[in-house]
Amino acid sequence: MSDFNSGFKLGLVGVGKIVRDQHLPAIAATPNCHLVATADPHASLPDLPAYQGLEAMLDAHPEITAVAICTPTHLRYSQARAALMRGKHVLLEKPPGATLSEVEDLIACAKQQGVSLFAAWHSRFAPGVAHAQQWLADRQVQRVEIEWKEDVRVWHPGQAWIWQPGGMGVFDPGINALSIATEILPQPFFLQQARLLVPSNAQTPIAAELSFTDPEGAAIAAAFDFRQSGPPTWDMHVESSDGSRLSLTQGGCCLMIDGELVVEAEEREYQGLYARFAELIANRRSEVDVAPLRQVADAFLYGHRETTDAFIE
Amino acid sequence: MSDFNSGFKLGLVGVGKIVRDQHLPAIAATPNCHLVATADPHASLPDLPAYQGLEAMLDAHPEITAVAICTPTHLRYSQARAALMRGKHVLLEKPPGATLSEVEDLIACAKQQGVSLFAAWHSRFAPGVAHAQQWLADRQVQRVEIEWKEDVRVWHPGQAWIWQPGGMGVFDPGINALSIATEILPQPFFLQQARLLVPSNAQTPIAAELSFTDPEGAAIAAAFDFRQSGPPTWDMHVESSDGSRLSLTQGGCCLMIDGELVVEAEEREYQGLYARFAELIANRRSEVDVAPLRQVADAFLYGHRETTDAFIE
Repeated sequence: MSDFNSGFKLGLVGVGKIVRDQHLPAIAATPNCHLVATADPHASLPDLPAYQGLEAMLDAHPEITAVAICTPTHLRYSQARAALMRGKHVLLEKPPGATLSEVEDLIACAKQQGVSLFAAWHSRFAPGVAHAQQWLADRQVQRVEIEWKEDVRVWHPGQAWIWQPGGMGVFDPGINALSIATEILPQPFFLQQARLLVPSNAQTPIAAELSFTDPEGAAIAAAFDFRQSGPPTWDMHVESSDGSRLSLTQGGCCLMIDGELVVEAEEREYQGLYARFAELIANRRSEVDVAPLRQVADAFLYGHRETTDAFIE
Repeated sequence: MSDFNSGFKLGLVGVGKIVRDQHLPAIAATPNCHLVATADPHASLPDLPAYQGLEAMLDAHPEITAVAICTPTHLRYSQARAALMRGKHVLLEKPPGATLSEVEDLIACAKQQGVSLFAAWHSRFAPGVAHAQQWLADRQVQRVEIEWKEDVRVWHPGQAWIWQPGGMGVFDPGINALSIATEILPQPFFLQQARLLVPSNAQTPIAAELSFTDPEGAAIAAAFDFRQSGPPTWDMHVESSDGSRLSLTQGGCCLMIDGELVVEAEEREYQGLYARFAELIANRRSEVDVAPLRQVADAFLYGHRETTDAFIE
């Protein structure tokens, strides 16, 4: 329990937009988390020791007990593994890997090393999610409609990697919706059909229509679209068999149940995420739910691809 | 243990080419397995009660304790679940599902019902596989070359489903190679790069080049190709760090170690498969290794697609 009492000392691997926008303010707001250094060959943070790579950072700062891996997806496995093998706790930004198989190996590795591995799905920490999950826990779901639509030019400006293998295209935001749905729905669900629209000059879809079901036969539909103009739509509507209706909107910030507003709050997802990481470390537990990434892999495996207009930013 | 002593009574779901070619002779050679009836809306077997569907078969024959699901992949989940929910043991032909998520649910369902679920990977029962696994168990692998090439017109005549989502294209035979590799290699491995060649009139690849690595940095290459003419190549070569070399060829029928022939035998894969199913039932155990299907999903998720010539049979 000493980790918890004294707080934990953190190294950041990868210093990009998500770190500046989300991780830094969240870390500052987490009383028992102390940021020690960063590792990135191209970037650094003011007033903080900076290293070219993970190994150099850990060599210089043996007091670091945990690292957060925020590098491009295809680099994460080897960095996470190296950190775990040095006995460090690891937080993985979403998605936890480029492939499912590499994540399985990290799970085994963390277990063997007796350290905490946390596959962080930030959207699960949106204000309305926990309440929605509770409310749905003892209900039977009949119908779900998920709409996750945003303007890729606004939300991912210049991010060419998103169109390459591993970038997942519209599933990069879509996996956030799937991380919420797999958390709040009381039954596991699985793909029945998918239509993936892939620009002629891209590897990954710009839009997708998916239909899922669950063991009770619920009708679960999801529409992901990067071609939205104007404000984003990040909404989820659930109808239960007793006729009640839940709406989780604005990415989980707003929860309505049967027409009544239950939660409306600003998002502090990454604060919740770091609080959970601290808790996992204190209890020497891991939390790695691959379900959202598995749903994406299923869609790529089983979806029907159609070519659409080239994407020009 | 009564299941084992008295033998088990089997119902076959789906009566297609694989059942006639492989399951029937294997069942006939399995002394404690008694085939009771079949369920298929379009086909039946001589001298055996035949039903249109699984539920009708199980209603008419409560003595059936186990079913083998050999229907097209997209039908398997609901049939397997229905059988499990009625307390029957279930053998799933490969691949165990159209998606990974549905297989996860079947695993949970079998556990809850206390019955045996067996995801059958027939190639793992090829004559040389067990010996190869044993030999590799305490070795460090440096290099693996997998070649799995066959003429689709010869091996899959008229099977249009293979080009549709879920049909997996060249991964339909390729998953056999992956089922062997995930069985014999001493470490888990994961994709680093893949190139998928997809005919302009198909959804699934006709050829694929894949490179994997493992936690020790082994170089594992696989080439799958449906455009082979002449006899098939179903070979796997493994070099270990001590300079030894293992070759498992002819789909696992032939095993050479350091130039010496160790195993050469006719394949009786499905006999081994039914013997394992009987053993699992007797011990109330399940065996569901999703690793081969996960590798295929990873390749679809992370592979680079290139369009190639239309396929005309």
